[in-house]
Amino acid sequence: MVRVRVPATSANLGPGFDCIGMAMNIYNVIEAEERNKGGLDIEVTGEGIGSIPLDERNLVYVSMETVFDQVGYKHKGLNIKLNNGIPLTRGLGSSAACIAGGMAAANAIAGHPLSTKQLINMAARMDGHPDNVLPAIVGGLTVGCMHENEVFYARLDPPLNVKFAVLIPDFELETSKARKVLPTHIPVADAVFNIGRAALMVASIMTGQMGNLLVATDDRLHQPYRKVFIPGFDEIISACKKNGARGVFLSGAGPAVIAILNGGYEQFQTDMRGILSLYKQDWDVRLFELCRNGLKVELEPGRNV
Amino acid sequence: MVRVRVPATSANLGPGFDCIGMAMNIYNVIEAEERNKGGLDIEVTGEGIGSIPLDERNLVYVSMETVFDQVGYKHKGLNIKLNNGIPLTRGLGSSAACIAGGMAAANAIAGHPLSTKQLINMAARMDGHPDNVLPAIVGGLTVGCMHENEVFYARLDPPLNVKFAVLIPDFELETSKARKVLPTHIPVADAVFNIGRAALMVASIMTGQMGNLLVATDDRLHQPYRKVFIPGFDEIISACKKNGARGVFLSGAGPAVIAILNGGYEQFQTDMRGILSLYKQDWDVRLFELCRNGLKVELEPGRNV
Repeated sequence: MVRVRVPATSANLGPGFDCIGMAMNIYNVIEAEERNKGGLDIEVTGEGIGSIPLDERNLVYVSMETVFDQVGYKHKGLNIKLNNGIPLTRGLGSSAACIAGGMAAANAIAGHPLSTKQLINMAARMDGHPDNVLPAIVGGLTVGCMHENEVFYARLDPPLNVKFAVLIPDFELETSKARKVLPTHIPVADAVFNIGRAALMVASIMTGQMGNLLVATDDRLHQPYRKVFIPGFDEIISACKKNGARGVFLSGAGPAVIAILNGGYEQFQTDMRGILSLYKQDWDVRLFELCRNGLKVELEPGRNV
Repeated sequence: MVRVRVPATSANLGPGFDCIGMAMNIYNVIEAEERNKGGLDIEVTGEGIGSIPLDERNLVYVSMETVFDQVGYKHKGLNIKLNNGIPLTRGLGSSAACIAGGMAAANAIAGHPLSTKQLINMAARMDGHPDNVLPAIVGGLTVGCMHENEVFYARLDPPLNVKFAVLIPDFELETSKARKVLPTHIPVADAVFNIGRAALMVASIMTGQMGNLLVATDDRLHQPYRKVFIPGFDEIISACKKNGARGVFLSGAGPAVIAILNGGYEQFQTDMRGILSLYKQDWDVRLFELCRNGLKVELEPGRNV
């Protein structure tokens, strides 16, 4: 039996559209084993009960089969248990966790024929971009670019002492729907705006310059278009800043919003819960930290591989 | 008498259009002093003799007066001596050196009323963007963004052991002309291409991942449009890569081209001189290093301030 713990991830982080991401300490756990009698059995606990398919359409299963096909591994059947901590379709990387976790599980069952780099490339191709699967696999804060079907990336261990307040609404937003509102062309000035801020964000995080982050996490590529899906978005962003956030942005395609904090964590949580309770939608405010290690594979509980 | 030594700078560095820059160890030296008899006397040695105006239109003088006006400092007249090592209108930051150096000289003469941050803001507004004046002033590799007329920046000290081969042709390219060929709108895919690469370049430089730089220094925002001004551009870029460059890009708006090397410096210089001698234009290949300190101000020779 293989057990894979895979973290939630947030992509974009403001200006880093489709390239910057980070892993957070909230997890899906995938347990998978071959079964001799053939067939497929999938059980779900936690997030997604009732909505996640339990048959061949299941994303963890599809991701596992992709690896088995790739490496030519034959199995008779599979038992898969999913214990999901990551809320679905909120912009917190639940799909990427299924893809990266499923692929890592299959790779472990097949005897590790694929390197981490190969897993990253396969997962990025399946997810369409590297910014969620990359931090899900390697952890930390990541920058990744696709070049000829290969991910070139850097993994950063920010020296900053921060936590992330994740504002999670009770409504879902399909990434495909959130992609459709984006324009095909943008003014060069908007591109330059994001290029500078994405580079400044990475540089400021590495040099510990928290004071730059409010400017450096601003975005003109996707948030201005996607905010129509999030009632009160501008007010919520302002309230986060007013209550001490050092940077604030849409998590992935949204609707979750992330505020960077370096202190006053519980106070921020209480204050923002109060403010958000005035909205018609139900919002939760949870505190997460950076997950520095990425996914963890165990062949038997307690034995790392 | 005040003496300011100010380094050449390269902007953009591939994907970092209008935001990333670095200082190199080739300098302009500005000597300035008040004169009692009034009037203005400007002398030039080195680069730009015969083309640099010696009257009130001189960029160093204009930059000095901008500071004097700002801080309310009155003088009777000025003697200015310019000893220029930075070739003009090649994309090596000669204008930025005049602006940053002139402003720093005037600030020293006026008794340092302006902070470094204030000088950076004034110089960036005058130059139109921060990516040359910022490294000229603070040195190293810099990322800077304008926000409400203020420069937010990070200064990086790359741990990489590299030199820069600077390929300098005998023709000039006015930045204004090089700006006119750029489109006003671009595909989002091109913006994402540059955002990821700019962030990856910064992250890879800080983590010492030389292997990423060939991909990370690629650009779709300005080089594809500006290369029409540089006969043989694509071939020259390819030749640099083939001869060991770890990254290669247009310096600023061009026409100079910079190749990142981490060894084989003289061999690369010899090889590329041979290849470039086949072109109708005259090219020189010079080796520079990162200037980590930025501009240096001395009130009297030998006395730092």
